[in-house]
Amino acid sequence: MASSIQGTRTDRLVNWAVDLKYADIPDEVVQRTKDFFLDTLGCAIAGRSHPAITAMVRFAAQMGPSSGKSELIDGSQNLTTSPAFASLINAAASHVVEQDDLHNRSIMHPATVIFPAALAVSQDIGASGEDFITACVVGYEVGCRVGEYLGKSHYERFHSTATGGVIGVAAAVAHLLKLDVSQTLSAVGTAGTQAAGLWQFLLDATHSKQVHTAKACFDGIFAAYSAREGLLGPRDILEGPRAMGIALVPGETNPEAIDQNLGKDFAVLRSSFKWHASCRHTHPSVDALLNLMKKNQVAFGDIESVLVPTYQAAINVLSLSGNGETVHQSKFSMGFVLAIAAKKGQAMITDFTDDDLKDSSLREFQKRVTMKYDADIDAQFPERWQGTVIVKCNSGNTFTESTKFAKGDPELPLTS
Amino acid sequence: MASSIQGTRTDRLVNWAVDLKYADIPDEVVQRTKDFFLDTLGCAIAGRSHPAITAMVRFAAQMGPSSGKSELIDGSQNLTTSPAFASLINAAASHVVEQDDLHNRSIMHPATVIFPAALAVSQDIGASGEDFITACVVGYEVGCRVGEYLGKSHYERFHSTATGGVIGVAAAVAHLLKLDVSQTLSAVGTAGTQAAGLWQFLLDATHSKQVHTAKACFDGIFAAYSAREGLLGPRDILEGPRAMGIALVPGETNPEAIDQNLGKDFAVLRSSFKWHASCRHTHPSVDALLNLMKKNQVAFGDIESVLVPTYQAAINVLSLSGNGETVHQSKFSMGFVLAIAAKKGQAMITDFTDDDLKDSSLREFQKRVTMKYDADIDAQFPERWQGTVIVKCNSGNTFTESTKFAKGDPELPLTS
Repeated sequence: MASSIQGTRTDRLVNWAVDLKYADIPDEVVQRTKDFFLDTLGCAIAGRSHPAITAMVRFAAQMGPSSGKSELIDGSQNLTTSPAFASLINAAASHVVEQDDLHNRSIMHPATVIFPAALAVSQDIGASGEDFITACVVGYEVGCRVGEYLGKSHYERFHSTATGGVIGVAAAVAHLLKLDVSQTLSAVGTAGTQAAGLWQFLLDATHSKQVHTAKACFDGIFAAYSAREGLLGPRDILEGPRAMGIALVPGETNPEAIDQNLGKDFAVLRSSFKWHASCRHTHPSVDALLNLMKKNQVAFGDIESVLVPTYQAAINVLSLSGNGETVHQSKFSMGFVLAIAAKKGQAMITDFTDDDLKDSSLREFQKRVTMKYDADIDAQFPERWQGTVIVKCNSGNTFTESTKFAKGDPELPLTS
Repeated sequence: MASSIQGTRTDRLVNWAVDLKYADIPDEVVQRTKDFFLDTLGCAIAGRSHPAITAMVRFAAQMGPSSGKSELIDGSQNLTTSPAFASLINAAASHVVEQDDLHNRSIMHPATVIFPAALAVSQDIGASGEDFITACVVGYEVGCRVGEYLGKSHYERFHSTATGGVIGVAAAVAHLLKLDVSQTLSAVGTAGTQAAGLWQFLLDATHSKQVHTAKACFDGIFAAYSAREGLLGPRDILEGPRAMGIALVPGETNPEAIDQNLGKDFAVLRSSFKWHASCRHTHPSVDALLNLMKKNQVAFGDIESVLVPTYQAAINVLSLSGNGETVHQSKFSMGFVLAIAAKKGQAMITDFTDDDLKDSSLREFQKRVTMKYDADIDAQFPERWQGTVIVKCNSGNTFTESTKFAKGDPELPLTS
């Protein structure tokens, strides 16, 4: 490989990304990529009417071109534009209903950034289906490895879907544009110096979660297209002395995640479908609660209290949303999500409504749910997302149930 | 003020920004704003041919509209576009030659982000000159106060011109769009959750410095225009429990900088013109060296070595650029900048050339310059940017010279 630069872990990751061919991708990776793509299209259509999306459509109309080769997944807008703006909107729309996928070890939602960017650019340049899939596999791999490198302490402060996501987008788009190793390093570097996304929005139910995925796409596309035009980016934006690892990680990084088992271990195969339409940190507990209720014939009205031993990251994220004053914010309240699941027997998109926010039986149940740090569960996270619930019933009985995997995990498919 | 929200420091800053009227602005602030605007136009024209700018012009052509009301400052491109793309390019162009202004206490270059954004949006909406100036004063004030709040330890990791700048841009544009307090809080919040910009580019002479100012404009315009369309941003992106202060500041913040003396102390009056075309951290030392050489009739060839006692932030930034392999990177080498100044008697734009990079007399001089941490100078920084040089001559004589202010500081005008 004359074009190879084999110095740093970032170099090795980028070399792999540039060199990947469709023929090198195992069939099961291709198939699962297609499944996640379909899943993402559904998410984008479900989220299309959210006020954040409406605002971004108007922004795109004001700032972008009035036509182009890239489409909104929600065809009803009848709007075509450039790939940067189409992906901005599609990425925001696919991250509204909290049903988009999750890569466990990086604590990232790769689908919501990788597919919108790869789709819009593929439409722009007329890429083949095989090129599209290859680019998506590259995007998942690079983005999720960066997220895993940044690790748990990064995730305490930053929305990793945005910060790892923008790098995954840059790599996926660079692959579609057939950039060489040097250009792709520039794209990844320019993406990384733009990496951003804070959790503050959780406290007041504002729209930054959608901004983060939207901007990961726009900024990653900016990085890759500009690199093609000669814009130089830092060559080691991950581990350099003034790079992401130093600036954006208060604790420890996981450097080996950047380049170990490249081409053998695929992020696509370690990503999960979301069964419930709520924050993924609630899922293990929802599964455990539903299993417990079924197994022990416990009804919603029988439950006096629920104690939820869980990992620290769940407590961190789920402690920020107060009572959950909007449908989206309520999906980040462990108490409210368990209340919905307990009362309705499931927690799907249509199970979260504005009326439910005013349902006093749900609000009362919500108050009787308590999270508690569990060191054993925390030690497994994020490799495994485990859940336990301890339910005390009005009858005086107490039941306990645990799950080793969340439903939708690779180890526990939705069809199981 | 019925629209006021007076809870947090962020609230108070935003209330002030929304309420500011042209008539409230002291004459000297208006005049200095005009002077900085003119200075910025010159910087943008001087930087127009840099490869980073060419790449961004091409990106704008690929992703943006083919016409619009906003112009490039460099009229030669004959390109009009939307304000987001015009400001992207103008902000990058005005941050190439290292002549744009500096606000001392925040360690920020406000002009390079505030003027391009305010100009492009003013053209878009047909704002008056008075509205333009008022918006620029708002942008300087909000941006620089945020930069000062984030402080010295933030600046060690982040390019504050980008992270404070995007918030200043959002506030300036919100003012032009006549957003109310609630919308402006959203704009500022959405800007802050996008705040990014790392120093890694200094190590390999890549183009992120221009990316940072470009994206501060684009992202701040996104924040303000989207807020007008209903996009909600976090309401305390500065001091909230998951906001910028927590996530982006490894050391201490300066909370009082956010809202003390609003309307009395103007950032515009505390900003400096740059006399030399190099990193501002070199300026106090360049001034001291030029004074020393003149006062003691020391010539370039007389100098055996230069010891530069300075503050830590200067050492941090200026230690990253190696020998300075490009014209831009060479402006971040204390040794090379002092060599240019000593040989040419000045360090203006045309004094830094590709030929100079190959000049062995400059390269030899560069090696004989050493920076040294000085606790007294550091204690004054960034309130004051002081410089001292200790020059040892071939004759055996040693001279020392210090400056209390850099030439171009408000306390030491260029005309003095």
